[in-house]
Amino acid sequence: MALLDENRLFPTDPALREFARNLYEGIRDLPIISPHGHTDPRWFAENEHFANPAELFVTPDHYVFRMLHSQGIPLEALGVPQADGSVTETDPRKIWQIFAENYYLFRGTPSRIWVDHALQEVFGITEHLSAKTADAIFDQIDANLKTDAFRPRALFERFNIEAISTTESAIDDLRWHKMIKNSGWAGNVITAYRPDSVIDPEFDNFAENVAIFGEMTGEDTSTWTGYLAAHRKRRADFKAHGATSSDHGHATARTEDLSPDIAATLLQKALQGTCTAEEADQFRAHMLTEMARMSLDDGLVMQIHPGSYRNHSASAFARFGRDKGFDIPTRTDYVHALKPLLDAVGRESNLTIILFTLDESSYARELAPLAGVYPALKLGPAWWFHDSAEGMRRYREMTTETAGFYNTVGFNDDTRAFCSIPARHDVARRVDCAFLATLVGTGRLTPEEAPDVAYDLSYRLAKEAYRL
Amino acid sequence: MALLDENRLFPTDPALREFARNLYEGIRDLPIISPHGHTDPRWFAENEHFANPAELFVTPDHYVFRMLHSQGIPLEALGVPQADGSVTETDPRKIWQIFAENYYLFRGTPSRIWVDHALQEVFGITEHLSAKTADAIFDQIDANLKTDAFRPRALFERFNIEAISTTESAIDDLRWHKMIKNSGWAGNVITAYRPDSVIDPEFDNFAENVAIFGEMTGEDTSTWTGYLAAHRKRRADFKAHGATSSDHGHATARTEDLSPDIAATLLQKALQGTCTAEEADQFRAHMLTEMARMSLDDGLVMQIHPGSYRNHSASAFARFGRDKGFDIPTRTDYVHALKPLLDAVGRESNLTIILFTLDESSYARELAPLAGVYPALKLGPAWWFHDSAEGMRRYREMTTETAGFYNTVGFNDDTRAFCSIPARHDVARRVDCAFLATLVGTGRLTPEEAPDVAYDLSYRLAKEAYRL
Amino acid sequence: MALLDENRLFPTDPALREFARNLYEGIRDLPIISPHGHTDPRWFAENEHFANPAELFVTPDHYVFRMLHSQGIPLEALGVPQADGSVTETDPRKIWQIFAENYYLFRGTPSRIWVDHALQEVFGITEHLSAKTADAIFDQIDANLKTDAFRPRALFERFNIEAISTTESAIDDLRWHKMIKNSGWAGNVITAYRPDSVIDPEFDNFAENVAIFGEMTGEDTSTWTGYLAAHRKRRADFKAHGATSSDHGHATARTEDLSPDIAATLLQKALQGTCTAEEADQFRAHMLTEMARMSLDDGLVMQIHPGSYRNHSASAFARFGRDKGFDIPTRTDYVHALKPLLDAVGRESNLTIILFTLDESSYARELAPLAGVYPALKLGPAWWFHDSAEGMRRYREMTTETAGFYNTVGFNDDTRAFCSIPARHDVARRVDCAFLATLVGTGRLTPEEAPDVAYDLSYRLAKEAYRL
Repeated sequence: MALLDENRLFPTDPALREFARNLYEGIRDLPIISPHGHTDPRWFAENEHFANPAELFVTPDHYVFRMLHSQGIPLEALGVPQADGSVTETDPRKIWQIFAENYYLFRGTPSRIWVDHALQEVFGITEHLSAKTADAIFDQIDANLKTDAFRPRALFERFNIEAISTTESAIDDLRWHKMIKNSGWAGNVITAYRPDSVIDPEFDNFAENVAIFGEMTGEDTSTWTGYLAAHRKRRADFKAHGATSSDHGHATARTEDLSPDIAATLLQKALQGTCTAEEADQFRAHMLTEMARMSLDDGLVMQIHPGSYRNHSASAFARFGRDKGFDIPTRTDYVHALKPLLDAVGRESNLTIILFTLDESSYARELAPLAGVYPALKLGPAWWFHDSAEGMRRYREMTTETAGFYNTVGFNDDTRAFCSIPARHDVARRVDCAFLATLVGTGRLTPEEAPDVAYDLSYRLAKEAYRL
Repeated sequence: MALLDENRLFPTDPALREFARNLYEGIRDLPIISPHGHTDPRWFAENEHFANPAELFVTPDHYVFRMLHSQGIPLEALGVPQADGSVTETDPRKIWQIFAENYYLFRGTPSRIWVDHALQEVFGITEHLSAKTADAIFDQIDANLKTDAFRPRALFERFNIEAISTTESAIDDLRWHKMIKNSGWAGNVITAYRPDSVIDPEFDNFAENVAIFGEMTGEDTSTWTGYLAAHRKRRADFKAHGATSSDHGHATARTEDLSPDIAATLLQKALQGTCTAEEADQFRAHMLTEMARMSLDDGLVMQIHPGSYRNHSASAFARFGRDKGFDIPTRTDYVHALKPLLDAVGRESNLTIILFTLDESSYARELAPLAGVYPALKLGPAWWFHDSAEGMRRYREMTTETAGFYNTVGFNDDTRAFCSIPARHDVARRVDCAFLATLVGTGRLTPEEAPDVAYDLSYRLAKEAYRL
Repeated sequence: MALLDENRLFPTDPALREFARNLYEGIRDLPIISPHGHTDPRWFAENEHFANPAELFVTPDHYVFRMLHSQGIPLEALGVPQADGSVTETDPRKIWQIFAENYYLFRGTPSRIWVDHALQEVFGITEHLSAKTADAIFDQIDANLKTDAFRPRALFERFNIEAISTTESAIDDLRWHKMIKNSGWAGNVITAYRPDSVIDPEFDNFAENVAIFGEMTGEDTSTWTGYLAAHRKRRADFKAHGATSSDHGHATARTEDLSPDIAATLLQKALQGTCTAEEADQFRAHMLTEMARMSLDDGLVMQIHPGSYRNHSASAFARFGRDKGFDIPTRTDYVHALKPLLDAVGRESNLTIILFTLDESSYARELAPLAGVYPALKLGPAWWFHDSAEGMRRYREMTTETAGFYNTVGFNDDTRAFCSIPARHDVARRVDCAFLATLVGTGRLTPEEAPDVAYDLSYRLAKEAYRL
């Protein structure tokens, strides 16, 4: 029995479906470009076996455990580690059983497609996951994971990944990337420069982070010029480990373009822990413009991922820490927020700034109009909660008419869940082919053009936008 | 001639249509669970004949008279009563004639489907309503209304209503519910606790209401502890009349979790009429958290209906009073607004808080992500202006991928228009079956799962979420 | 070879497609009512040949040059004039070549449909525009433009335009309209009253403009009563040149209803250049209410076009001036903003105020509920970035259920690009027929009603709403 419908996500109209399917067959086997994500480079450095099905599918996947929690299942029962080290469930089979019993909760969600895809295509499972099949499926996955064909590098190759970017903190020692590089393995695993911990005055241990940043670079990061020089050096280090991009996860899209004096004063206050909330926000906002200026020099593509209210539940945060499914999107303004940055560098044609959003109301109203005129701007794909069939369809419907296809940058999987990578790219390719088939079927694109666009959306645009 | 297309609201693709129709046939005759609405309990208590077609279809239905007014027809001409008792049209036949002549205005609106459904299915009308048919249809309805088969209880039974909740003020004497209870009639008509008039310092006659509240409960509601005790007692009274829920119609979703001292001080100011607008808002916001805490104790399901700018037109309000079609949705923030409440009780799995919205931009951005992680939260169905085929479709498309089906609560008709109840549930059932058929047709749900989900959305989820 | 698919923008389901096509054939040849736009009256006054293909299709069309610029092509290379008179590209063939080479950028955009429509239907082009065909197509258009059949008046007649409105500043001398009137030509080209330059204290040269305004009308515009009298006189002048509407392009939808004393004081400050930003905003806001009151007297239909952040890029504005593609939509509130105006005149049934939006999130939430109850309000069509197939579909899906069809006003092309007028109306007619076919196919409208509604949306509503 197949878990997956061969025609999934294609239009239901027979003529459109056939056209979409043909388009898809032309691009389904293109290599995967994964220019933004959160896989662990250690996997590829050490190439150890993944531990067990629960650690692969449940414990690290916030999409999965947040849904289970929403129905009253304690995070502890899913093995989510507690911040104080208190015991949580450690038996992977018990965790898997809960997942299987509650798998019906995922009906209609992208997690359902991703998990089914991984079960069928990666592990050869042919039964639907349920309380009844839980054990047998656990055993089958577990047995596979113990074989060499399921080690990280083997899966990487089997997934046909041409390039994948992880994301490291500006004060990461990049040891795993060094180890991959020195290993002689040909897999193209690169890093991306994520300086939030040394840019955000409200980040845990900001001053300490900036001091480490200074030590790592031999710069006096207690001065504004030394601090900027440290960024330049670390960006160069990251480039030496393959980085072609930086990534910025601010709460808002606010940017500023302050005078060096003011910026230097804010840095002093930030280091002394005397910033007001507004000053901290100004500093973060200004640093986006500084990062953009450095990008003009060193060519790193800049990614801005704003709009998540992180760790919304105080009790969940206190007990389980960051990234536990309690990050909630908020309304995000781009038009006013980006103006200082855009006035500084927005009309530079050698610069690429990729904007993401968690606020779909900004697609047609703000983001497509901005990316449709500023040479430096491109639109990132549908992100996070919107990385889904409906989310991608809305993205294309609300951005294409104003920004076209060529101010977008193909697909990002943005995931920690390694086995979901082929599934996620497959969803994106199918949804894009469905969209293109609809354009052709309604006379908005010629049948001759569609395969080119499908190729661009699946492969070329990501490669070119990220300079890979 | 049929007024209604048998395949209305199903997908137009023939294969999907057949699948949707089969799904629908499996659930179309399930009993109606109506857990939130505004029918008048007096109807069921006294079981008198409804007066005439205009009083049944036009005068009490703000969807209907607002549309007629938008085209310049004075509300007086539709028999909408004036606040000062001035004369308005009293001839039901004249009112009906205006409605019929202008019935084309409702093309493409849900009112058109609801009215046609009631005309055909309840009254057996076979001609489209128009200036020409107005009189004959008036006569046919009017003749029916005089018969016993069209008394409220008979219709209730014919509509196959398993349970219906009305909504009463916290200072309502519940006389009609007592009368229903004592009548021996088996119809399950329950109340819901709506305390706005004693929670909102800006409500008309707030201090007087709170004094009555004290008298009704024998508590000293001029003190904070007495005031809370009065709520507890009245909630118990409401439970004794079947209530399983409370309902809160605040202008925003703001919540607070204040210290008892501060809350007590705000209550004093509110009773003395010296609250600032901000203090009144704080008090309302805090009371949502108090209500949630009481729900943890007494098990009432909490409903929050925020985001309506009530009585937007000053002149219409002065002349005709509340609920005259001039309530306009506004942008509503949930992420920041609900945090105090959610920090207090959001991770309680024995609590159910049902959120509604009039701001569809919050579905995918805020509400589905919140309900998709907090155990206490569920999403109410598409509400008011969004209780429509397109509105329901957008609701499913924008909430399912992140919240799934099982963080939603089935359908609410939320109506004062009794004869529209079967029509509204029928629309919801059809639209949900269409949505499920589309998921199946695009490989996102198996054909075997769809009937279960259709049953859940049409019946089980409402019953379970509302503890009926 | 045809550039255009005969069935473009119709539903893909065969049965719906045929129904839509039949509907469309019933209305495709109706005359064009173009009640709001920005064509140049001088064209029709002088009736000179259009200069060349680049000046017709590229240089004046901000949709076109903004997209080209977004991919790094300098505006200078497209012949966009610089504010200081510096040289830009003057060879139309070179500009055309860039356009043709980059024509693939417009895949999936409305510009693609509009340009293809003009190329095929106006100029008889049968090859797709590309680098290869650029020269030949340039030559063919250029040759046509030199003939009498392609002069403005001839095209006007060929386009079957029954009435077109241009938009002139309140201090425009209307010379071209006078010239048209005196020419004896029968083409119905009317003006519209656009008083932004004498209403907005932050408009360039506001005080000077108001002084000219006084001279033109013989009123002392340095006094509040004289200033209002000047508006009345100029509105009458505009009416004498056919105007049936005024148009207001404010940054927000804010309105106020101030006392004459306060308004007079604000005018004094505005003339002296001492307004704060807030005072300037109050003055603009109040003037919308004054304009509405004058509309009650003189019958001009009022149009409010809020929500564009004009000239977003400081550098592009400094170099190229206004209207260069850097106008970006922003979030717009209507519910609070319009209340003062609506309290003043919103329930007047002899007044027509047409609201537009660039913020689609306001369609279902604010605009449809407002227009669905206030007699004075109507909804303008999908505007600017939303004047597109998807934009129009969303408009109908999000407004019809609450406002119906009869609180909308048909289509506006709102364009400077003369040859795109038939294309734009054709897109609107097709999309509306597709929408109506879908309603019929899903049982929400009878097959008998659909042709009437199609006629209303294509022709009657625009004519009646704009009193043409």
